[in-house]
Amino acid sequence: MTGYAIGVDLGGTNLRAAAIDSTGKMLEKIGGSTNFSEGRDAVLADIVAAMSALRERHGTAELAGIGIGVPGFIQFKEGIVRNANNLPFLENFAMRDALEKQLGAVVILENDANAAALGEKWMGAGRETDDLVLLTLGTGIGGGIISGGRILRGYLGMAGELGHITVVPNGAPCGCGSQGCVEKYSSATAVSAMARLLQLGHDLSSKEVYDIAQGGDQRAQKAREVFRVMGESLGILLATLVNTFNFPLYLLSGGMLPAWDLFAPPMLRTVTQRSYSFRAAEGSTRIIQATLGNEAGLFGAAYLPWVEPRVAPASPGK
Amino acid sequence: MTGYAIGVDLGGTNLRAAAIDSTGKMLEKIGGSTNFSEGRDAVLADIVAAMSALRERHGTAELAGIGIGVPGFIQFKEGIVRNANNLPFLENFAMRDALEKQLGAVVILENDANAAALGEKWMGAGRETDDLVLLTLGTGIGGGIISGGRILRGYLGMAGELGHITVVPNGAPCGCGSQGCVEKYSSATAVSAMARLLQLGHDLSSKEVYDIAQGGDQRAQKAREVFRVMGESLGILLATLVNTFNFPLYLLSGGMLPAWDLFAPPMLRTVTQRSYSFRAAEGSTRIIQATLGNEAGLFGAAYLPWVEPRVAPASPGK
Repeated sequence: MTGYAIGVDLGGTNLRAAAIDSTGKMLEKIGGSTNFSEGRDAVLADIVAAMSALRERHGTAELAGIGIGVPGFIQFKEGIVRNANNLPFLENFAMRDALEKQLGAVVILENDANAAALGEKWMGAGRETDDLVLLTLGTGIGGGIISGGRILRGYLGMAGELGHITVVPNGAPCGCGSQGCVEKYSSATAVSAMARLLQLGHDLSSKEVYDIAQGGDQRAQKAREVFRVMGESLGILLATLVNTFNFPLYLLSGGMLPAWDLFAPPMLRTVTQRSYSFRAAEGSTRIIQATLGNEAGLFGAAYLPWVEPRVAPASPGK
Repeated sequence: MTGYAIGVDLGGTNLRAAAIDSTGKMLEKIGGSTNFSEGRDAVLADIVAAMSALRERHGTAELAGIGIGVPGFIQFKEGIVRNANNLPFLENFAMRDALEKQLGAVVILENDANAAALGEKWMGAGRETDDLVLLTLGTGIGGGIISGGRILRGYLGMAGELGHITVVPNGAPCGCGSQGCVEKYSSATAVSAMARLLQLGHDLSSKEVYDIAQGGDQRAQKAREVFRVMGESLGILLATLVNTFNFPLYLLSGGMLPAWDLFAPPMLRTVTQRSYSFRAAEGSTRIIQATLGNEAGLFGAAYLPWVEPRVAPASPGK
């Protein structure tokens, strides 16, 4: 591993990118909102401009490649994005090849949660292991699985859809067509919805529900109940993952992390009850907070050219 | 891969073994009940005698090694069995090294469900893929996961404990300390228990419940209800596995298979509802019957010396 790579996080409203060297040192980070409403060509032009500027400043010869985290299923071999709900103009578009052609550099696409898991493995809380699961608890719940040091993608790039694992068989209907998905109980959106059901208020953020829970009154008790259900549901998912993988490490990240002191105790109680391999491991199976925050995806995307090397395409004009 | 290997299935009451060549041809199969009550030394002596006899008939120089499937958690590096509930005298015993010393041959221990999954991958229904999950539906439910052509073991050899994944959060208590494990709803034991709850009879085998379901009366309707619950519970587990791995293949084996026509339709309906990646795969994700029956473990155990090679120990006396 030599030189540096560029990691990109292509969110629904933002384009963030970073030049990161092979030791994991962040050389430069750029970002800002992008006008996605202008369509595919405008977004691609934005990406190309940002990449070119970074490359100009850090060297063309030294660039190992560009990794791009995208919300959606990646058909890895073809370099195509599917189910990119927040970026509909990318659907079924051969994005990788288009960017490689315009940039004359290796480009690798990856699901954003997978990229974040790889980032935590490379430079975050997972540095000591080759096997981990990362759960991102935000408006939804995403999952990334690292097995033997590599991303577990599945044959259609759909592995790690952990937010849609059933934890309440007859539970709340989910947009995915199922019901009782863990996303309906343990995401920030779910916390707001449960607070509304318990008549704590409309449109409360998970932070506001957390603040209500700090009081000593009946409303506080109800708010703590929300986090108990949120933690127990997450615990069922985690017990399932421990029973399935027997990995040493499970990382949590995302907007719900500040409520850790309220949801982690019921979560860990549930995992302990529902996984005898967790108990048999006598504390060596760790369920902890991820450490890179929203930079995990940048690190993971930048790491891709080194762990998933592809042959560099010809530079334009050559 | 040259020569042949010996695969052993060490059950709770039986010792079965087979000499299998590198093309998957079974050269000889032996088996019979073993007097496990005589303790560890007697069982080891039985194994050594059976192995020596097979080796004498098929050649010492040609033997690639011996794989042994054992019910329990295998500490692979150390060659030790843990939680061998049916074979308590093997608990924490350095079985591999003891056998290698006595036999002067490479010995590899493996969890029995993992061995069966590997057998199906090598010579059974999984030959076309490197990524599959095998579920054995017997008195309990076991699981074996093959990822990238290799057994997924987990850091303590406890991966694939799929029978103890929660499918009914407030469900029936399980011996593992949890409740609502899929084993309490989709195993042969569970079918008998549910038939008892529905007052179909005490101590009915799953086969007898199946036979009752063939009728046209009210008892038949109740029996079919048992298989509906059995299939839906299994469907929740399978949807979880599809959402997690996005593997192309999920195999079912074990004593419940003859009831396939009753439990498979509700199972597949449930997977379809609860996994949008299953739906997005448009039929390419297959959930089908395994083909090797109780020989899967023999094939998988025999395959181990070729896929998990270890250095041969010195022959005794050298």
